[in-house]
Amino acid sequence: MAGQKYIDGKEVATHNSRASCWIIVHGNVYDVTEFLDEHPGGSKIILKYAGKDATQEYDPIHPPDAITTNLPKEKHLGPVAPDTVQKVEITVTDEEKARLQRVSQRPSLDEILNLHDFEAIAKQVMPEKAWAYYSSAADDEITNRENHAAYHRIWFRPQILIDVTKVDWSTSILGHRTSMPVYITATALGKLGHPEGELNLTRAGAKHNVIQMIPTLASCSFDEIVDAAQPGQVQFLQLYVNKDRNITKRIVQHAEKRGIKGLFITVDAPQLGRREKDMRMKFTAEDPSEVSRSGSDGVDRSQGAARAISSFIDPGLKWADLDWFKSITKMPLILKGVQRWEDALKAYDLGLAGVVLSNHGGRQLDFARSGIEVLVEVVAKLKEKRGLTFPNEKFQLFVDGGVRRATDVLKAVALGATAVGIGRPFLYAFSSYGQEGVEKALQILNDEFEMNMRLLGATSIKDINADMVDASNLSAHVAAIPGDRLYDANYESMQHARLREVKTKM
Amino acid sequence: MAGQKYIDGKEVATHNSRASCWIIVHGNVYDVTEFLDEHPGGSKIILKYAGKDATQEYDPIHPPDAITTNLPKEKHLGPVAPDTVQKVEITVTDEEKARLQRVSQRPSLDEILNLHDFEAIAKQVMPEKAWAYYSSAADDEITNRENHAAYHRIWFRPQILIDVTKVDWSTSILGHRTSMPVYITATALGKLGHPEGELNLTRAGAKHNVIQMIPTLASCSFDEIVDAAQPGQVQFLQLYVNKDRNITKRIVQHAEKRGIKGLFITVDAPQLGRREKDMRMKFTAEDPSEVSRSGSDGVDRSQGAARAISSFIDPGLKWADLDWFKSITKMPLILKGVQRWEDALKAYDLGLAGVVLSNHGGRQLDFARSGIEVLVEVVAKLKEKRGLTFPNEKFQLFVDGGVRRATDVLKAVALGATAVGIGRPFLYAFSSYGQEGVEKALQILNDEFEMNMRLLGATSIKDINADMVDASNLSAHVAAIPGDRLYDANYESMQHARLREVKTKM
Amino acid sequence: MAGQKYIDGKEVATHNSRASCWIIVHGNVYDVTEFLDEHPGGSKIILKYAGKDATQEYDPIHPPDAITTNLPKEKHLGPVAPDTVQKVEITVTDEEKARLQRVSQRPSLDEILNLHDFEAIAKQVMPEKAWAYYSSAADDEITNRENHAAYHRIWFRPQILIDVTKVDWSTSILGHRTSMPVYITATALGKLGHPEGELNLTRAGAKHNVIQMIPTLASCSFDEIVDAAQPGQVQFLQLYVNKDRNITKRIVQHAEKRGIKGLFITVDAPQLGRREKDMRMKFTAEDPSEVSRSGSDGVDRSQGAARAISSFIDPGLKWADLDWFKSITKMPLILKGVQRWEDALKAYDLGLAGVVLSNHGGRQLDFARSGIEVLVEVVAKLKEKRGLTFPNEKFQLFVDGGVRRATDVLKAVALGATAVGIGRPFLYAFSSYGQEGVEKALQILNDEFEMNMRLLGATSIKDINADMVDASNLSAHVAAIPGDRLYDANYESMQHARLREVKTKM
Amino acid sequence: MAGQKYIDGKEVATHNSRASCWIIVHGNVYDVTEFLDEHPGGSKIILKYAGKDATQEYDPIHPPDAITTNLPKEKHLGPVAPDTVQKVEITVTDEEKARLQRVSQRPSLDEILNLHDFEAIAKQVMPEKAWAYYSSAADDEITNRENHAAYHRIWFRPQILIDVTKVDWSTSILGHRTSMPVYITATALGKLGHPEGELNLTRAGAKHNVIQMIPTLASCSFDEIVDAAQPGQVQFLQLYVNKDRNITKRIVQHAEKRGIKGLFITVDAPQLGRREKDMRMKFTAEDPSEVSRSGSDGVDRSQGAARAISSFIDPGLKWADLDWFKSITKMPLILKGVQRWEDALKAYDLGLAGVVLSNHGGRQLDFARSGIEVLVEVVAKLKEKRGLTFPNEKFQLFVDGGVRRATDVLKAVALGATAVGIGRPFLYAFSSYGQEGVEKALQILNDEFEMNMRLLGATSIKDINADMVDASNLSAHVAAIPGDRLYDANYESMQHARLREVKTKM
Repeated sequence: MAGQKYIDGKEVATHNSRASCWIIVHGNVYDVTEFLDEHPGGSKIILKYAGKDATQEYDPIHPPDAITTNLPKEKHLGPVAPDTVQKVEITVTDEEKARLQRVSQRPSLDEILNLHDFEAIAKQVMPEKAWAYYSSAADDEITNRENHAAYHRIWFRPQILIDVTKVDWSTSILGHRTSMPVYITATALGKLGHPEGELNLTRAGAKHNVIQMIPTLASCSFDEIVDAAQPGQVQFLQLYVNKDRNITKRIVQHAEKRGIKGLFITVDAPQLGRREKDMRMKFTAEDPSEVSRSGSDGVDRSQGAARAISSFIDPGLKWADLDWFKSITKMPLILKGVQRWEDALKAYDLGLAGVVLSNHGGRQLDFARSGIEVLVEVVAKLKEKRGLTFPNEKFQLFVDGGVRRATDVLKAVALGATAVGIGRPFLYAFSSYGQEGVEKALQILNDEFEMNMRLLGATSIKDINADMVDASNLSAHVAAIPGDRLYDANYESMQHARLREVKTKM
Repeated sequence: MAGQKYIDGKEVATHNSRASCWIIVHGNVYDVTEFLDEHPGGSKIILKYAGKDATQEYDPIHPPDAITTNLPKEKHLGPVAPDTVQKVEITVTDEEKARLQRVSQRPSLDEILNLHDFEAIAKQVMPEKAWAYYSSAADDEITNRENHAAYHRIWFRPQILIDVTKVDWSTSILGHRTSMPVYITATALGKLGHPEGELNLTRAGAKHNVIQMIPTLASCSFDEIVDAAQPGQVQFLQLYVNKDRNITKRIVQHAEKRGIKGLFITVDAPQLGRREKDMRMKFTAEDPSEVSRSGSDGVDRSQGAARAISSFIDPGLKWADLDWFKSITKMPLILKGVQRWEDALKAYDLGLAGVVLSNHGGRQLDFARSGIEVLVEVVAKLKEKRGLTFPNEKFQLFVDGGVRRATDVLKAVALGATAVGIGRPFLYAFSSYGQEGVEKALQILNDEFEMNMRLLGATSIKDINADMVDASNLSAHVAAIPGDRLYDANYESMQHARLREVKTKM
Repeated sequence: MAGQKYIDGKEVATHNSRASCWIIVHGNVYDVTEFLDEHPGGSKIILKYAGKDATQEYDPIHPPDAITTNLPKEKHLGPVAPDTVQKVEITVTDEEKARLQRVSQRPSLDEILNLHDFEAIAKQVMPEKAWAYYSSAADDEITNRENHAAYHRIWFRPQILIDVTKVDWSTSILGHRTSMPVYITATALGKLGHPEGELNLTRAGAKHNVIQMIPTLASCSFDEIVDAAQPGQVQFLQLYVNKDRNITKRIVQHAEKRGIKGLFITVDAPQLGRREKDMRMKFTAEDPSEVSRSGSDGVDRSQGAARAISSFIDPGLKWADLDWFKSITKMPLILKGVQRWEDALKAYDLGLAGVVLSNHGGRQLDFARSGIEVLVEVVAKLKEKRGLTFPNEKFQLFVDGGVRRATDVLKAVALGATAVGIGRPFLYAFSSYGQEGVEKALQILNDEFEMNMRLLGATSIKDINADMVDASNLSAHVAAIPGDRLYDANYESMQHARLREVKTKM
Repeated sequence: MAGQKYIDGKEVATHNSRASCWIIVHGNVYDVTEFLDEHPGGSKIILKYAGKDATQEYDPIHPPDAITTNLPKEKHLGPVAPDTVQKVEITVTDEEKARLQRVSQRPSLDEILNLHDFEAIAKQVMPEKAWAYYSSAADDEITNRENHAAYHRIWFRPQILIDVTKVDWSTSILGHRTSMPVYITATALGKLGHPEGELNLTRAGAKHNVIQMIPTLASCSFDEIVDAAQPGQVQFLQLYVNKDRNITKRIVQHAEKRGIKGLFITVDAPQLGRREKDMRMKFTAEDPSEVSRSGSDGVDRSQGAARAISSFIDPGLKWADLDWFKSITKMPLILKGVQRWEDALKAYDLGLAGVVLSNHGGRQLDFARSGIEVLVEVVAKLKEKRGLTFPNEKFQLFVDGGVRRATDVLKAVALGATAVGIGRPFLYAFSSYGQEGVEKALQILNDEFEMNMRLLGATSIKDINADMVDASNLSAHVAAIPGDRLYDANYESMQHARLREVKTKM
């Protein structure tokens, strides 16, 4: 109607199926047919808007440029003719109503006593799919939980009668001061949990002087996140390396220009992990009719997302590429996802600034060891092979995964880590309470640090050394032999003394 | 009526009790009185057809020649006179109706994300007796579960920054290529789970280029299974050695003629194990009246099956017999069920092609160690005693039992195994979805292999070595001391922050 | 009425309270006032018959001479005048009716597949007090359960390709043949579980050629038990040593005269243990009014039984006494209840015939180690100190406690034990099924022995040696550190694929 | 009305809010506005009496001088004018009624068989807030429970054939005789559990000749507790060191003058721990409206109590201060809360009388090791470094935390402790049954000591040595790796034989 350049809404409306699916976002038409199965949120939600205007649903979750970035140019079909588009009415499901009711019942922030509490609330107030995406991990989620369990195999040897009137747990990371030996590590898709997404982290980090690592897969755009920082606020960048090195070069040099202080190259994800809870959720979210059709047409949708993503994460990244990185940036280079001492040694020998001993929060290789366990191995071997001691200014060790308490952080520091990355707990904090949640989380950590520095008899982070912990059981991967069910079922438990029963009067 | 040769259906009908029980199968009459207690499916189901035509019930479970093979010639009474046989009407029990209902509710194969899922579905859609037979194991089933648990004591040491754009997990078993370091190991009575029985495995193996080991106790006949193979498809044979060595010789030489590429002689089952879940099920399946009568007449029915079987498995098989095997076949000889290094060494010294470190899926000796644990012992000792390294082309080590993930397989390969046998998961796959289930199971393994090869930083099976795992806790047979029930009952668990309660409006 | 010698029933009837309590048994009157709190079955049941004829209640539980033996002479008041005694009507409680109903529902013996099953049935069909007495153990019952758990830390190393057509698990104990390396160990108060008490064990032992150890505290009299033996049947005697050594001498020499083949002197019970389940049951069984009165009068009834018993078990028994035993009998002397190698060594040096490594079924000192763990220590140290190897004809080692499977026995034999004592399982067997139960239990053990000898590749008990087990984890007393309840409560378990829901029609 | 000096009740009544809160106690007016958030019992209970006479509520919980001691002088506003005060009517809540009902249902003391029982009863009959205060511990309460669990990793090696007719478990602590190697350790706020508070402990201690350690934070005043002692009864003092050393000096010298025999200086609490159960309870106890207001005004109430207390516990206490202590008192000095051998060695070198290896009942630093574990380390190292053996008259080692049985105490003694402190169990004893409860608790310990001395073959405490225990697993901090939920959910448990079902008639 409005000439060649505009697409008529009625034509868009005919592309309303899995066979051909067009949607309208911000007045532009996109052919998402081939993208359906690659959509992290599942295809169902897109199909609901097939042939229609999806802007209202799109906005709260995606960065503005998500669709233009992720969809090849040829799928950008052009602007839709105004006034030809059908209005979309959003109906709120009973499930969603119940969730919103729960949101209104959140306890006051005063009642949140520890980082676990945020997770308990988030589990109840987040949309199910968002929860599944944040909380899921690889295969049987053994490594995911081991990350936390490993800290329980480390015990303290506190010292007494030290004047701890003043205790100071601030420290430096890559030469930048931080109020605590903790940084906010990179995690994807922040808007799934809260409309402000990663900006919650930026702003809370500013208030508490804690460094944020910006993820490649943020829901907010990189520049939005950098723009939200306070003057002087330190930010790092987590990088997935693209097959097209020009894209990577552009990202890295842009980051350096914007003042990013460290480049953390992810090396534990040549392919994104299979996370079955997340996959299971997608099937649940689909129409049964939809699923059976798909099942019968032989399309293997479960592999879709992984294949799609591997197009922008290069599985070919290798040691030889690190020279190229050095040639394009002056930012300190840190490898994120080192899991054995041999690789930490290589990184050191190549002159990198450090390594993050991490298994990607248990989301990649199941039965990878916890970062804290690898830390002990790395510290021992780099001392043996190169005479290094830790913490070390020149080559810094970081750990992430499973941290819930300041005591966990202090254990890592005692064993040689410069600082510890915390991810999910902050996601749960803003998913429950937005920016204030993250601030509260940081405040809780501060309170715990103050308390525990005093109780350890340490006045500064320098005092926290290997002598303060007993980590001799850290590498014990105990899986008890299976129980004797017949014997156990026969055993009648001991009983306590009990209150007398009162005869009810007739 | 029809002369001497034919038996009148009316006469058959008089043999309708435990005291004398005849049945008709495919027009022939059999006296199964003495076989009643040896029937793997229990006597009740036979007695239901005592004096009647059992063909309709028989066909879906048994190989055509089962009854003629298992019953002595003198119990083959001859053909029944046509038209004299009473028609049998099969009534479907409520229990069976409920099961068929569950069959119709199976989720689509797309929703099956891992090998565990098949078991979860099979448990619900299989006939109870079939489930009991497949899933049961020896005594307290400790070894059965330890087989899986042992893998959880092995952790990975992945390497990074290896170009894993292309990863290849194909390998060779006894010189034959396979798409993965996995073979379908031998398991008995496939038709209990699916009418096509072992053929499901043959056909799915063909599609995925995975080797099948044909069991002596298959529900389908050996030739049926070999006939179902594609040209060039590799099959092995698992062998129970008969007391009558002529029968064994016939089986072995027939197998070699039909192109079988390896002979796996079972050495861990001089007597078939007591599997109490299976035994319990048989009692449940019987009439109470029936059982009490049997109990009072002093017949020890629980030993029936075992005694019957020991007539065709020779408990006298010994090391000295191996020369005889070499004299009757050129097929590579492998011992299946080796459980200590001393025996692996003997097998090597005798020039055999390899050993399977196995405890028969936990179905024989309870508290036998897991194959994966024995593997570490064997590799260490054969290096010490004979200077061997593994994997080794000349003398190959296999492991089976407890495998559910490609990571389990990769752990075994890292520790020196050539390949790993998987049994029950494939049974559960075809019991739930037939051949497509097995194909899906193999596809899942492929997906897992691809993912995990990349995450380990290995481009081929050769890259997977002992340095990639930490198995230092593998031999820890931890059975924790019993808990303090009084203390534990007194302890009040920590509680999370909770949602506020909303006062319901009146 | 009938002269001085007879007591009038009416007078007896006036002694019907805790303050003064007389009862009539077999026509004689006894003053049991001071015995009330020492009665193993609690005082309530006696008080029910205070002033009355208790014969009908007494007979099924006690040996005929129990009351005359346990009560001081001066409390034997003399015969009651006939026809002056009030008749007692026994009312069956609802609880007892329910129990009798359960007795009638016992499954057939054919359905009993293992020793655990007897316990499962006994728990339901035994009177509660009897169950509490048999099943209870010391303090938190840690040792009681550890006795069984310890066997789960021992694993097999079976050998293959041994001709096991014939396997023989018979052996000798103190020079006497037995069909298996098992004896029926001494346990008290057999009639609590079955009216025939210990005679069930004697008769079943005869049938299966298994040696019975007669307890000092049997419900049947010693001579009854010896009389019930078959000609040539071997019996041992377990001995509590009395403060009055003349009593002990009489018992020992009478036993020797009656043909007892071994004297097992209990050394782990200078005082009988506190068994709280049993104590708790007594309070439950009492009238609340009764209890509060007792509570308020300051009588410490909980110590009653222990004090009473310590009058006939001498806590002063010491090493020096063993010479005296040698002087009064030629029977082989064995110490029952040795728990450290130092004491086993002393016993050897004193020329005793052996020791039982036992903690009294966990009924004495909680946190005593299991006999099987002590066995390994003893074997190692007696080799080191005296060059002994085990099993050893001259100095035999026995173990008891926690045994439920023939595999448990074979583990003990492999580690050096001559034989293993089994107690509670036989009690549960006759409490459920009388003598037939015990026979069945022995038959089950036989079946298990046959099976497991074959699977271990052992043709006789001599073949079962230390090389056949891996006991390297036996001494690991693992009590895991407490769990992280907040983390665990947050973790959402993985879920399997599920059946589709079917929409109900209408 | 009554002149300048008296405050009118009507004026008091206007200070009835969080903004300004006055209360009347024993006729005096106090401004507690700033104290509200520091009140251990929460602010709600005070606000209930804002502007009113709180004496009736105050008396049963607080020592008479609590309010004058804790509130700065300037908040003591002076006497209220008599007859101007509004009467307060106390309403009993349904919750409190239910609790009182439970109090009336307590079982008789005869039914209390062990120390666990007191806890089981106390949990039900104590006010919820009191229970939360007594039972709570630091962070995830891992150390709290580990204190008990650690004892379960120590096993006995009892000896036999020792004459144990007479056994004696009395011993000396710092030169003072005690009936058992146990003392009543210091715990705060005794009146929360019982109106007589710490006096219950004094009086029961007198009866059983057990030493009491008086806490700085008792509910009863120090002099009340000393006055309640019998002539010759030994008492120790636990000391929190005040920032104002004059206050501390006054306390110490007053104690010495009153006859206190040992000064236990707490060194593990430079700041009082965060105890989340206790904190959670306070929020629960508050009005929601109250809480939200507080949350919104930015007041961080959770830190209130800790800050308040740190004003009277000096976090600056250091090794150098110990000389000063020696200068002001002749009492033996003992450090309470030592947690590593290095600090025990320092204490020895400084000539102190001993150390308590303690983590404050798990209420301070979570993941501090148990005292019993530290004991083994200290004994080994002080032998190595100074040639000391333990128990040692000159330098005594004590342990507290997690003790529930006499066997626990005997383990500590065997490993070198002079005696063991028990705290919570006595609190639970008097919270359930007052003084009689504590006496019963001590009697139970006596009974257990007698029994276990006999069973260990020890006639006196000197006989209990390291050879009597196996503590080789004590330092194993086992946290098992996470379970495989999918595998476990699939596993179908073994089942026992079952009773037959009875067909109901009709």
